Amino acid sequence: MPDYQTLTLDLGARSYPIFIGEDLLSAAEHTLRPWLGNGKVVLVSNTTVAPLYLARWQACLEHWGIAHHHVILPDGEQYKDVQHLDQIYSALLAAHCDRKTTLLALGGGVIGDMTGFAAACYMRGIAFIQIPTTLLAQVDSSVGGKTGINHPLGKNMIGAFYQPRAVLAEISSLCTLPARELAAGLAEVIKYGLIDDVPFFDWLEQHMPALLARDGAALAEAVAWSCRNKARIVAADETESGVRALLNLGHTFGHAIEAGLGYGQWLHGEAVAAGMVMAATASHLAGWLSAPELQRIRRLIEAAGLPAEAPPLGAERYLQLMQVDKKNEGGRIRFVMLRGIGQAFLTDALPTAALNAVLR
Amino acid sequence: MPDYQTLTLDLGARSYPIFIGEDLLSAAEHTLRPWLGNGKVVLVSNTTVAPLYLARWQACLEHWGIAHHHVILPDGEQYKDVQHLDQIYSALLAAHCDRKTTLLALGGGVIGDMTGFAAACYMRGIAFIQIPTTLLAQVDSSVGGKTGINHPLGKNMIGAFYQPRAVLAEISSLCTLPARELAAGLAEVIKYGLIDDVPFFDWLEQHMPALLARDGAALAEAVAWSCRNKARIVAADETESGVRALLNLGHTFGHAIEAGLGYGQWLHGEAVAAGMVMAATASHLAGWLSAPELQRIRRLIEAAGLPAEAPPLGAERYLQLMQVDKKNEGGRIRFVMLRGIGQAFLTDALPTAALNAVLR
Ligand SMILES: NC(=O)c1ccc[n+]([C@@H]2O[C@H](COP(=O)([O-])OP(=O)(O)OC[C@H]3O[C@@H](n4cnc5c(N)ncnc54)[C@H](O)[C@@H]3O)[C@@H](O)[C@H]2O)c1
Ligand SMILES: NC(=O)c1ccc[n+]([C@@H]2O[C@H](COP(=O)([O-])OP(=O)(O)OC[C@H]3O[C@@H](n4cnc5c(N)ncnc54)[C@H](O)[C@@H]3O)[C@@H](O)[C@H]2O)c1
Ligand SMILES: [Zn+2]
Ligand SMILES: [Zn+2]
Repeated sequence: MPDYQTLTLDLGARSYPIFIGEDLLSAAEHTLRPWLGNGKVVLVSNTTVAPLYLARWQACLEHWGIAHHHVILPDGEQYKDVQHLDQIYSALLAAHCDRKTTLLALGGGVIGDMTGFAAACYMRGIAFIQIPTTLLAQVDSSVGGKTGINHPLGKNMIGAFYQPRAVLAEISSLCTLPARELAAGLAEVIKYGLIDDVPFFDWLEQHMPALLARDGAALAEAVAWSCRNKARIVAADETESGVRALLNLGHTFGHAIEAGLGYGQWLHGEAVAAGMVMAATASHLAGWLSAPELQRIRRLIEAAGLPAEAPPLGAERYLQLMQVDKKNEGGRIRFVMLRGIGQAFLTDALPTAALNAVLR
Repeated sequence: MPDYQTLTLDLGARSYPIFIGEDLLSAAEHTLRPWLGNGKVVLVSNTTVAPLYLARWQACLEHWGIAHHHVILPDGEQYKDVQHLDQIYSALLAAHCDRKTTLLALGGGVIGDMTGFAAACYMRGIAFIQIPTTLLAQVDSSVGGKTGINHPLGKNMIGAFYQPRAVLAEISSLCTLPARELAAGLAEVIKYGLIDDVPFFDWLEQHMPALLARDGAALAEAVAWSCRNKARIVAADETESGVRALLNLGHTFGHAIEAGLGYGQWLHGEAVAAGMVMAATASHLAGWLSAPELQRIRRLIEAAGLPAEAPPLGAERYLQLMQVDKKNEGGRIRFVMLRGIGQAFLTDALPTAALNAVLR
């Protein structure tokens, strides 16, 4: 049996394991089977990932004699909508799936978010398992139970907090990932270092070349470290009423970049990367973050092949875009700022001068 | 301030009050305001109920200076679908509603189920309050947190367990309810007596004429008694993994009747009434229920103006319809049967002869 690590996301009765390893399929008796229950399995994937990885998991279920079906959605964020969610429901109903059915999400964050939401709502909730195949999904979206779809009037506006039974992060699947997608995932990885993990940030500064070269051991280490951080933060605040908001470091600016350029121009991780540099710069201008630390942050982001410069949308447009961000309660913008590397904090008192300087 | 009763549905951190009274609006400082939070309010209602009751609640919010909007859906079970759910989301997004928004469901079970589901999914969950205006909604659908919509391939297939912040059952709103809808609600009322409440069953035998005459005190008593029973059962088993299934007494047969005749022919409560007589008859034939008790059940249902005779769909069609009912795990049909009035129990061992005799 191949090596793998097991982490636990601690949520009382809803706790679940996160398995991280090069090859989890060979260990499927331990990583998959115990979480399946005794009903059918429905695999959900997309047209890019299914040809690469679906057959292996199907063969495994076949071997166990477990009845299974699959739903293959088109590939793209633009299909993370109510129509394609309905394709999942229709397939489940057509296959007479009952409450004992388990969904398997095989793909990136889009497939994971949609499958999780379908599981949350089908017959008021059935089990699901995440098999994330992008770096972003392995270090971020598959862990923590945020599920959902987009609405024409807003991204991720419709969804549920709904936890999976297990997460299987297979490092080997990152080999086929386009370089730009790998880098986008690294933005969220760097984020964990910045929030509250100095040793991880230091490690990333040293191992960025290995990560970009897709060294399996380095990737597994980075995924495990990221998941440990995310699991800790989510365990402390499952429904984002407090500390979980720190995970939005770089995201208030990042969402504005994504929306301002039109979704699909920059990848989410790219926008978050530039957004983290904006947050760091604003923190520096507000007197919270030193110049050398700002430099280190910018340099690591550039080393990951990510943009450190935000697109020039104009201060007014940025402000307008950030006002509609859903994290804003009662009209004020709450930012995640930095007192240092590994010292993120929430504030709605960012000095206007610092904000404006960053947005120009 | 007018009289009202307060019950509590005990679900730990998610506990909530159920207010029952002739006129709860005059007591709104106590029954509504404390549960609103400090965001906007969006009232959801339909084209029948809104002209009758919307303005009163709007005036109340106006008086408190609370910003509010409303969404008026068309009236009917056929609109309990994903398209009309989306109308709620679109209205919320158009009004820039954030996570502090509270939804108010003003209507029968259709509006309550849809509004609750919209609240469950909007930005992964916002607060909502039930103001049920049908007897069925007051005694059943508004209490217990089952929310959802229909799918073209199955009723109530998409939904969530999501509890309201409060339930306001205004008895006065039952005055405008069509007689057939009132009787349909009485089917669920009778159900509580049958499940495990002999004193309530006795009381119903005596007070059926007062209930049909819409005597306010009698209706308030019946609603309170019903809600107390439902609250107790839900508190013991929020997500229907055990005892909550007893609430499906008459429903396995009832759902088959509704589906077999085509939805909208018989009201849900009418089908449940006939379904309870079928369950009682099968229980009698299986040797569990005495003939005099079967007679009392049939007589009370007839006294409520409800059908005691199931439509002749044929045994084969009934079986087929019951197989697709979502309560069936692993292919076997689980029935709620009676050992006596007030002694319901779950079984998947109903003798075939008893079942077939009932279906013919
Ligand atoms: N739930 C959360 O907490 C959370 C957190 C962050 C992001 N998200 C969501 O996640 C989504 C973004 O996730 P993503 O970056 O994984 O995007 P994605 O799912 O669109 O995947 C990116 C691309 O990579 C392809 N792909 C996936 N795995 C592959 C593989 N192994 N080899 C080759 N190609 C592969 C996909 O088909 C797609 O084209 C967004 O919808 C975002 O809203 C959710
Ligand atoms: N969530 C649950 O636990 C649960 C339980 C039982 C039923 N339900 C659902 O509830 C729905 C049935 O509820 P219902 O029987 O209230 O149906 P409904 O909501 O369709 O209301 C019945 C009719 O009465 C009208 N009406 C409502 N209040 C009125 C008033 N005060 N005066 C005059 N007319 C009024 C409505 O407009 C409608 O035409 C179904 O969709 C069913 O699936 C849910
Ligand atoms: Zn992100
Ligand atoms: Zn019912």
